[in-house]
Amino acid sequence: MKMEKWRWSSAAHRLLRLCSNPLSDLRCSPKLQNSTPSGVLYRHEGTCEWIRPFIGQQKQHFGQRSHHLWSGNCLGETPGIQNRFFGATATKIERNSKFATLNSNDISYFKEILGEKNVIQDEDTLLSANTDWMHKYRGSSKLLLLPRTTEEVSSILKYCNSRCLAVVPQGGNTGLVGGSVPVFDEVIINVSSMNNVISFDKVSGILVCEAGCILENLISFLDNRGFIMPLDLGAKGSCQIGGNVSTNAGGLRLLRYGSLHGNVLGLEAVLANGEVLDMLGTLRKDNTGYDLKHLFIGSEGSLGIVTKVSILTPPKLSSVNVAFLACKDYFSCQKLLLEAKRKLGEILSAFEFLDEQSMALALSHLEGVRNPLPPSLHNFYVLIETTGSNESYDREKLEAFLLSAMEGGLISDGIVAQDIQQASSVWHIREGLPEALIKAGANYKYDLSLPVEKLYNLVEEMRTRLENLATVVAYGHLGDGNLHLNISAPQYDDAILAQIEPFVYEWTSKNRGSISAEHGLGLMKANKILYSKSPAAVNLMASIKKLLDPNGIVNPYKVLPQSMIH
Amino acid sequence: MKMEKWRWSSAAHRLLRLCSNPLSDLRCSPKLQNSTPSGVLYRHEGTCEWIRPFIGQQKQHFGQRSHHLWSGNCLGETPGIQNRFFGATATKIERNSKFATLNSNDISYFKEILGEKNVIQDEDTLLSANTDWMHKYRGSSKLLLLPRTTEEVSSILKYCNSRCLAVVPQGGNTGLVGGSVPVFDEVIINVSSMNNVISFDKVSGILVCEAGCILENLISFLDNRGFIMPLDLGAKGSCQIGGNVSTNAGGLRLLRYGSLHGNVLGLEAVLANGEVLDMLGTLRKDNTGYDLKHLFIGSEGSLGIVTKVSILTPPKLSSVNVAFLACKDYFSCQKLLLEAKRKLGEILSAFEFLDEQSMALALSHLEGVRNPLPPSLHNFYVLIETTGSNESYDREKLEAFLLSAMEGGLISDGIVAQDIQQASSVWHIREGLPEALIKAGANYKYDLSLPVEKLYNLVEEMRTRLENLATVVAYGHLGDGNLHLNISAPQYDDAILAQIEPFVYEWTSKNRGSISAEHGLGLMKANKILYSKSPAAVNLMASIKKLLDPNGIVNPYKVLPQSMIH
Repeated sequence: MKMEKWRWSSAAHRLLRLCSNPLSDLRCSPKLQNSTPSGVLYRHEGTCEWIRPFIGQQKQHFGQRSHHLWSGNCLGETPGIQNRFFGATATKIERNSKFATLNSNDISYFKEILGEKNVIQDEDTLLSANTDWMHKYRGSSKLLLLPRTTEEVSSILKYCNSRCLAVVPQGGNTGLVGGSVPVFDEVIINVSSMNNVISFDKVSGILVCEAGCILENLISFLDNRGFIMPLDLGAKGSCQIGGNVSTNAGGLRLLRYGSLHGNVLGLEAVLANGEVLDMLGTLRKDNTGYDLKHLFIGSEGSLGIVTKVSILTPPKLSSVNVAFLACKDYFSCQKLLLEAKRKLGEILSAFEFLDEQSMALALSHLEGVRNPLPPSLHNFYVLIETTGSNESYDREKLEAFLLSAMEGGLISDGIVAQDIQQASSVWHIREGLPEALIKAGANYKYDLSLPVEKLYNLVEEMRTRLENLATVVAYGHLGDGNLHLNISAPQYDDAILAQIEPFVYEWTSKNRGSISAEHGLGLMKANKILYSKSPAAVNLMASIKKLLDPNGIVNPYKVLPQSMIH
Repeated sequence: MKMEKWRWSSAAHRLLRLCSNPLSDLRCSPKLQNSTPSGVLYRHEGTCEWIRPFIGQQKQHFGQRSHHLWSGNCLGETPGIQNRFFGATATKIERNSKFATLNSNDISYFKEILGEKNVIQDEDTLLSANTDWMHKYRGSSKLLLLPRTTEEVSSILKYCNSRCLAVVPQGGNTGLVGGSVPVFDEVIINVSSMNNVISFDKVSGILVCEAGCILENLISFLDNRGFIMPLDLGAKGSCQIGGNVSTNAGGLRLLRYGSLHGNVLGLEAVLANGEVLDMLGTLRKDNTGYDLKHLFIGSEGSLGIVTKVSILTPPKLSSVNVAFLACKDYFSCQKLLLEAKRKLGEILSAFEFLDEQSMALALSHLEGVRNPLPPSLHNFYVLIETTGSNESYDREKLEAFLLSAMEGGLISDGIVAQDIQQASSVWHIREGLPEALIKAGANYKYDLSLPVEKLYNLVEEMRTRLENLATVVAYGHLGDGNLHLNISAPQYDDAILAQIEPFVYEWTSKNRGSISAEHGLGLMKANKILYSKSPAAVNLMASIKKLLDPNGIVNPYKVLPQSMIH
């Protein structure tokens, strides 16, 4: 076994991470999120997997009266790419006729309470705010409001509720399921102006801030004080903490620090009727009644608008190491994860896996990628990252673990990165897979949560089903049980799709998996919730929605099937 | 600085922990929970702080029509102890007349669905099930049901709901706020017979089990497989996981592994109408709709009965170290916590503090305790425990941290335990404080969550208020922001109490603290919720209670003020 050892700086590591997008398994600079559609897509063609599903032949139109998935071809007819929308049937939704339409009195009222400049009717700004980051969904709102305080949010909602004007809460608008843009003419309430840090307790690490704080700004704020956010996303340059909390964003640090349900200590939210719900606790322990904040974490703004957040932040640690390993079978990957949890336990920060098909794809399609563990391919690869407080101890611990795993036959080959370039090159294999898949042709893509022990069974069953029709490529965040299942074929083909869907959803459902590991349901999957949740649970969700928002004005058409609410 | 260094075994550590009761800061063998009242109290007199509040002169009676706090003197007139109930005004509650009373048809029905032996009417068994662990509360239920399956729980609730028969869910009955016993004649549904482990995934560490599994049995089950439960309680020999989840039990491992809101991945619960709510996910990532399970975590069985739990368990780590340190002021304690989080970060497992008054009390009243850092007393003491995967690395890391903290002036003296006896002796100082307080005389006791930076301000303000009337003794789980505030005086005195209450609750409320850090509200503090939660939040809780349990049959009179529900 080749074992190259060396250290690399935390700063360098952050540079590497700058190009990662954990909201999917895609990697793009967050700075480009505000670019024009074609700009984003062209600049990132070949590196951003998520552009693929939006390329389509079935061009449809936006309209006030009915909404369709936007599948216009943003890339133009790019040579060599199958311009076929797949995997998400166009959604037809009728505008709910009970919602009022804006009139001049409404505008006057909003100008009165917010001031002229915070009531936006400018077409260019509205076009941007009506359109999601991926340019997959677009609404036709005529009004964007920019409240600066909780009280202003409350006044807006109270008024909209009394008028039965539908609203959509918006932060950085970086969501991936159409949750943060209007479907029709909903009033957009964007909390970007509410971007103050309210307090930070450097003993407990508890940060309290307004919902519009951009994640990257919070990261910088904390960095200066020796702390980190418990979540880190590729979209951090644009996404806002209120949106992160509302979507229960996962991200790169979930394996280590857990989900926002564990890290968010308190919230302030404004309900549909304008009532301010103060749940802004800053305590690690508080057992006084039902913990209502959890209803708002991950409800995608459909139960109210999050206006303030209290979050427990971990101390920043200085030592990072990366290893890239080969395993003979999936069982060894599982066993290695078990051992890594036990022996690296407190310093383990990432455990990613990819299969032989993934590596073959990377070698064929990614520029500059060479086989890191030559001469031949292995059945499985694992990327392990550790983050700790003491560089020499952590590195020694990692090496001892790796030697033991090798002796135990769990890994058949491996390397430890010795500088930022080597670390970057092994991360690039994992992170470049979306790009490689795009270059390979058509790509049917699924982002699933599954029990780790069963996760690869789906891949094998899919291979059996598809036989030679397509190549099944599997990788993902094994440490989180998050599988990225990709079916790669020379071109899109209904025969292939028929073999995949609804089988993939049914299999996921049967094995108690989730059809949305971290993106949420939004508009895109509101009607698919029953694949992952029981009818009784969905009924209760609908009842809670009706309880908190009887008129259904807050972020309508999202999260839950409309038939259950209206 | 004296620095003695050595190792001690994990097994030995567990022996030490066996006598700890993290539900309060009290330490008793869980094996004694089923003893008779006087038996428990006599055997543990002087070691169990929580017996103190139940000693009272105001003897009151149980009755079918009205309920009073039970303040009968379980100790008899023990010499030297002030037999005066204090700190919780006797609660008078009228039985809700809308609830039906049991009849012979009901009994027949339950025997039919559960079998004769699972329908308990035996007086001795009922007396035990009607009485809480501390013998503070006692109901007058005539019926105890022992369902063996979720379906049986569902059938029971469906029937009770249709008959408007009130029920109380019960597990190990180890709660501290009267939440797990009937107030009047509620039917007791005890889930002890539902005690099967359903599955364990040794790769992901995800355990799925029935609600009646005793925590200690789960700990043993996992121990054999190299994992631990993310919570550990002194009551582990009796308490059950369904009850732990329903009360959001904190415990010894909260600092390290966080609360159950982060660790519980899924639940199955039966609603008041018998509907089974399947939320039993086993996924770390699942963003499909509102995360309803959190409503049931910490709702003390008032929204339904938890029947199954899915929980993420951490790998067992082998290395434990304990240090006992002196600090010159509270600011140094805070700073030390900050540094410990940063430098020990991933191995820090406990950070406890006590003040000079606490140490003086321990030295005066605890047998065998000597000043661990002589010759004089220091203003503050901190106990740090680390738990990690590598004994030598962890110990070296701890020592380096301590040397740096000493050089930085944060600690003025300290020791590192070198064997189980030394570790035990320093833990005993911290753990023995409740005992010392009892021996010192009257003890007004408060268990509060507060922002760490303000936590000791309350202690100082209390000293100013009380002047020479009483001694204020403060200690607690600093790492969790959990203060145990004790006012010690030769005898109970209304003048003292008037200086403490409602000031202590108002101060806690004003500083966004919690009046119940980990015990819950139960019957004891249902009417005090507004000290810690906003009226809007409590109103919403009441609405959710009514939504899930329209007849209010599940665990009535608990958690929320009755005036808001009926």
